[in-house]
Formats: sequence, structure tokens, C-alpha cells
Amino acid sequence: MTTELSPDALPELLERARKDYAALAARGLSLDLTRGKPAPAQLDLAEDLLSLPDGRHTAADGTDVRNYGGLQGLPELREIFADALQVPVTQLVALGNSSLELMHDCLVHALLGRVPGAESRWVDQERIAFLCPVPGYDRHFALCERFGIEMIPVPMTPDGPDMDEVERLAAGDAAVKGIWCVPKYSNPDGACYSDETVARLAAMSAAAPDFRIFWDNAYAVHHLTDEPVETADLLAACAASGNPDRVFVFGSSSKVTFAGSGVAFFGASPDNVRWLLANNAKRSIGPDKVNQLRHALFLRDAAGLRAHMARQRELLRPKFDAVQRILAAELGGTGLAEWTDPKGGYFVTLRVPDGCAKEVVRRASEAGIVLTPAGATHPYGDDPRDATIRIAPTFPVQDDLEQAMLGLTTCVRLVGYEKLSAS
Amino acid sequence: MTTELSPDALPELLERARKDYAALAARGLSLDLTRGKPAPAQLDLAEDLLSLPDGRHTAADGTDVRNYGGLQGLPELREIFADALQVPVTQLVALGNSSLELMHDCLVHALLGRVPGAESRWVDQERIAFLCPVPGYDRHFALCERFGIEMIPVPMTPDGPDMDEVERLAAGDAAVKGIWCVPKYSNPDGACYSDETVARLAAMSAAAPDFRIFWDNAYAVHHLTDEPVETADLLAACAASGNPDRVFVFGSSSKVTFAGSGVAFFGASPDNVRWLLANNAKRSIGPDKVNQLRHALFLRDAAGLRAHMARQRELLRPKFDAVQRILAAELGGTGLAEWTDPKGGYFVTLRVPDGCAKEVVRRASEAGIVLTPAGATHPYGDDPRDATIRIAPTFPVQDDLEQAMLGLTTCVRLVGYEKLSAS
Repeated sequence: MTTELSPDALPELLERARKDYAALAARGLSLDLTRGKPAPAQLDLAEDLLSLPDGRHTAADGTDVRNYGGLQGLPELREIFADALQVPVTQLVALGNSSLELMHDCLVHALLGRVPGAESRWVDQERIAFLCPVPGYDRHFALCERFGIEMIPVPMTPDGPDMDEVERLAAGDAAVKGIWCVPKYSNPDGACYSDETVARLAAMSAAAPDFRIFWDNAYAVHHLTDEPVETADLLAACAASGNPDRVFVFGSSSKVTFAGSGVAFFGASPDNVRWLLANNAKRSIGPDKVNQLRHALFLRDAAGLRAHMARQRELLRPKFDAVQRILAAELGGTGLAEWTDPKGGYFVTLRVPDGCAKEVVRRASEAGIVLTPAGATHPYGDDPRDATIRIAPTFPVQDDLEQAMLGLTTCVRLVGYEKLSAS
Repeated sequence: MTTELSPDALPELLERARKDYAALAARGLSLDLTRGKPAPAQLDLAEDLLSLPDGRHTAADGTDVRNYGGLQGLPELREIFADALQVPVTQLVALGNSSLELMHDCLVHALLGRVPGAESRWVDQERIAFLCPVPGYDRHFALCERFGIEMIPVPMTPDGPDMDEVERLAAGDAAVKGIWCVPKYSNPDGACYSDETVARLAAMSAAAPDFRIFWDNAYAVHHLTDEPVETADLLAACAASGNPDRVFVFGSSSKVTFAGSGVAFFGASPDNVRWLLANNAKRSIGPDKVNQLRHALFLRDAAGLRAHMARQRELLRPKFDAVQRILAAELGGTGLAEWTDPKGGYFVTLRVPDGCAKEVVRRASEAGIVLTPAGATHPYGDDPRDATIRIAPTFPVQDDLEQAMLGLTTCVRLVGYEKLSAS
């Protein structure tokens, strides 16, 4: 962010920003860019689910999907997602409607049970810490906070987390039990982990024998361009590096079919899978297999999944294009902002001058545009530079999104020029 | 169990039992009386669910059920179950497909968080214990065992647990944090808690300020007779007794609609509900509301729920009748067995002479009839008298059930007469 601004121009720019903001506030908007929710039009693409499985209640292997049982989930659905999640079908588990639940439950089972390789339950250890690439996903951080797991921020780069830092921290501190990763189209940067990042994660030394990578592959098939990004296969790399149990892979169809009524997946080494299933066997008599059959019939196969996501992309591309267009038109060359241009996923990161993010979000809120709270992208809600804003363009209709983005850029100009004037 | 047997008759009875057992074993049966699973014919009654909500995706309050959100679950479904579970709609939560999961999660949240009234997390306390009425449900006991919660058995009576014991233990030991209760048609006795039992549970002194009754009302609407048993309202009684937070009510539609794809419920005081929802908010972005809408459309209202259960009863009554008929015909007057005659629920308890239950189960298994392991009805799998066998008549078709019951009675005669002969 270099400003090309001459000091003489500042009063006029500030004056214009103030006028624009007053006009914005006067419009009484009520717009929401907070959460990564699919829009109703995206959900409509899966409308057939609402009458499936249409009288059928038998899985390919003869299982009556209506009854109890089947802790690992339906094989035909696992087959559809195995390639996308880079997990062999036999090591993939299909469960309930939320991958966040699975991450929560894996933490619980590690805290109260003993994860393979652990010397004791995590809850019995004096200190437990997770590495948190920042900016990252607020709900990951909320899980750590809820369980008293210390969070150690690590800066993100366009290739994934700063691996020098990750290696140093994982090797040097046995209390570091894990790291949160969104490897493809990360939340919120849209960054994709490079092959080198994946290789280093698999091979690095970890002081904790029970170190785990929570690999939240939430956007595995959520491409926005003609060049789908393929990240390297961490599960295979871990096995090849002699660390087969290092990774828990998470995935979900929440942003494929219905956000609230999808199917979540867990993939890992055979030992980890046995561990999860043994824990789950105490907790449940099996997942909702009717919903799994419903999804298998709807998506059909891996090609069907890809075709469905291509239809999602047609709806999402214009929204992400609008975000880029408006940011460039309104903030390009001002020196007040930088932003990411993701090739997939659900978010755009907007970086404003240090100390401005909270104020931008506050001003936007006062003008009726609700944004994710500034700081939410960092552990404990604390962005030390107060510079990161997460934009979630998917849910609003196109016109609302464009109005909200224009309003947001007005707020950035207002707060940015106010700050420059004060300094 | 008083035997009317004259010693002279024993050799002949044993001889006949041995012959019958040899003939049974020679038949090469493969029958299963282990688990309380609905039969396919019961599941067929809810077949319409397989094409619901049939294109509809909007709840009564306008919510798009396909998307995220709605942590408390759909009001229209909660309304249908509120009366049956004796929980006001505003204090009832509709969640995923398993009430066992909810019980597990409540334990987890109490262990790792702080339940209302608690002085500290349970995991930070030196000793935690639960009262376990016996015989009881093995999956309750498995949860305690998994989390290192000490189990203290309390004898069941036809009116519920021995309340003198419950009161003594709850009042005298602050480590006693809870009790497992299946108040109506209990698993496996089919006992129903009397009004006095409910009143005493609500009013008794508990040394632990965070004492909780895990009220697993699994068979709330699962009547087998023309005289549906109505147990007293514990949630209201607790509030009236000044112990509003004492009870967690659990329920589920697993044995109403589809065992694996139903909806589970949690009901409690407003403070407890807020506590659960706050914990759930960290774990999930909401339950599967499409499935909740599906159930609301299928069941329609409380009367629809009752009518559906009347159809279930038509299928189950002949099975429970056969169990009674065969037990009476084959073991009546032998002095070898006593059994319960439940007015609802899913189980019959068969009591055999002390020291015989494991052997009966073993002999039955060798003859191709699989029963719930003897001891499963007691904490740690340890029935000190080795006398309790749980019979689950629902899943097999009528003929298989009758074959299995005949075989079981043969095993009881064999093992019982062998024991008498040896003594």
C-alpha cells in the first residue's frame, strides 16, 4: 500500500468521502456481508434433494439406510468425495451435517481420550497450544478458546503459512499439538498451499508425538476460475514421510448442496479412523444414512459433483467479479487498501491502513452494512495491526452486494483520509 | 422364583432339556435378539419421509431450512413433541439424529465447560460419580466409563429407582453429579416412574450444586396397551421444588420414524437451554432443519404423532405378546425364571437363577441365537448376581422372534437344570 497522495489533495478527498458517507448513511441500507453463507439461488441448484431418495431406502450394499448403524457412512457417498478430498474411500468417514462439529469432536476426543501417539489425554497436560495461520477462520479460533487451547499466530503467505515459523514452533515446543489449515482457497485470503508447503508440513519435526494438522479442506471443489487449483495430497505425503497419523482431513457438502443439511467428512490414517470410529461408537448409533443416500443419488459420482460446482461457479463468479471491479474502481491507486483476488472459496480479504479496520467496520455498520467484526480473522479477536477485513460476497443478491461494496469503499475512504488528516 | 420341582423329577427334566438343546443346535439358526432396533415394517410406516419435504424449503416462520442457522431447531417440530416430552416449546431444542449424542455432548460440555451451578469444570474435580439404576441401558454406562465417571448402582423397583438409596447417595456425596433415568417403560425392565418417585427426585437434597438428572424419555410415546402410562412432569416438579436446573430431558424420534434419520430433542430450564445453545454455537452452525421440516410435515401435530405410534403398536403388540406367551408356556411354573410384562417400550427383562445369565447367553449363541451380553444391563458389564437377560423383541419378524424365544427358553431350562443338578 503506497499512497500516491499529495498532501494538498487530502482535504478535498476527505471532504468528498464525508459527503459520500453522509449520502450513504441517509439511504438507510440494511445489507449483510458477514458470513460465508450460500445464496438461495445456490441452494436452488440442489432442490431435487427435497424429494429424494424418493421412496428408495436401500444402499448399494443392501443396507437399510433408515435403520441404525453404519458408523463409517455410506460407501457410495464416500466414493463421490474421495478424490476431491484426497482420501482413499476406505479411510474416509461420512457423518453428520457439519464438519465444524467433527473438528470440535476431534478436539474433545483428544482432550478426554487419547489420540493415537499421545502420552496422555490433552486435558491432563499443563499447556496445549495450536498454531493459527492468520488471517484465519474465526470458528477454528473459537474452538481453541472454548477449550483453553493457547493460540499461537503464524503469518499467512500466498503459499500457505510461513513454514519457517511453523517448523520452528512445532519442533521447539511439545505443547504445540496442532495447526489449523484451510489448504485451498483459504478463509479469508483465498490462498492455496504450495506443494512445498504441503511437503514441509508432512515432513517437519514435531516435538509433540501426537501433533495433528487439522486440514479443513472446506473449499476443495469450490473453484471460481477455469484453472481449478489442485493442492498436493497431504495425507499421502504424511504417510510417505513416516508421519501417517499427522493429519485429520475435514470436508463437507454444506457449500455444495444445502448449508444446513449436507454431509460432513473425516479422512485420516487407518489408526486415526479407528480412533474416531471407536469414539463415535460410544456417542451415536450411526449417522443419517438417508441423507447420505439422498446426496449419493443427487450427485451421482465425482463428475456429477464437478458439474454441480460448475453451476455454483456461474452464480458466484459475477459476485466475486463485482467485488474486484468495485474495489479497483473506488480504491485503486488511493493507497488506502489492498485486497486478494481468490481463485475459489468464499472470501476476499481487504487490508486497510493499520489501525483502521475496526473503525471501517463501525462506520459501515452505522450506515447499515454489517461486516464480520474486525479482528475475527485473528486468535482472541485481536488483529494486532487492526488492518484486516473479511468480505463474504456469496449471500447477498448481486445488486445488494454491489451496493454494500460501494458503501464499504466509501467507509474505507472516509476512515483512511481521516487518519491521514490526523497524522 | 420358587421352584415347585421335586428332586426326583430333575434328571428327566435335564435329560429333556439336553435333547431339546441338541435339536435346537442342530437347526443351525441365525437369529438376533440383541438390540432395540425397529423392524423394517415399522420403518415402512414412515415411508413418506423419503420424498418429503417434496420441494418445500420454507418453515412456518419463513426460515429457509436449507441454509445455516436456527440453533434451537424448527418451532413447528418442537410444538409436535413438546407435550409428549413434557417440555414447554420455548425450552425445547430440536437437534440432530441421535439423543445419545446429546447426552454425550452434555457430559462433554459439563466436563470441559461449566454447567449452570457448577463451581468448576467436572474434569477439574478429583472424582465424579453418577447413580445408575440397575438394570439399565448399556450405552448410558458406556458414556460414564468412557469419561472415567464412577458408576454407583442403585436397584430398580417397579416404581423407578430405590429412592431411599438415591436420596442417601445424592445428599451424602458431592461427587455424585447425576443419575441416569429412563422414566417411562425403562430399558430393560419396562418400569414406569411413580408420581412419588418423580416428586422425590425433584425435591431431594443433592450435595452437588450442579447435580443433574439425565432424563432419557426414550419411550415417551411408545405404548403397548390401551392404557398409556403418563409419568409425572419432572421438569415442572423441579421448578416447583426450587431446583429448576436439576433436569436435562432427552427425547428422540428415532423409534418413531427412522432409527438413523430421526430428530433428537433436549429440554430443560431456560438457564440450561442457554448453556447448551451457547456450547452448541461453538460446535455447529445449526441442525439439519430440512429433516426437521420433513418430520413436521409428516407427523403434522401431536395427534398425528399419537396416531403414528398407534400404528407402530399394532406391529409390536403381537411380538411382545409372543414373548409373554412363550415364556409362560415354556418356563411358567418351572421356578427357573421371572420376567417383566411391560406396558410399552422396547424390552423385556428375563431373570434367571443367580449365576446362570452368562451361561444362558453363551449356550444361546452357540445355538445361533444372539442375545445382548449378560451383564450389559449393569455398570462395567458386571451383574453381580449374573441373573439378568435383556430381550429385544422388536427387530426380528414374528416367526424368527418366536423361534428365538423358544430357543432361549430351552437354554434357560438347560442351564437352570444343570445348575440344580450340580448343587
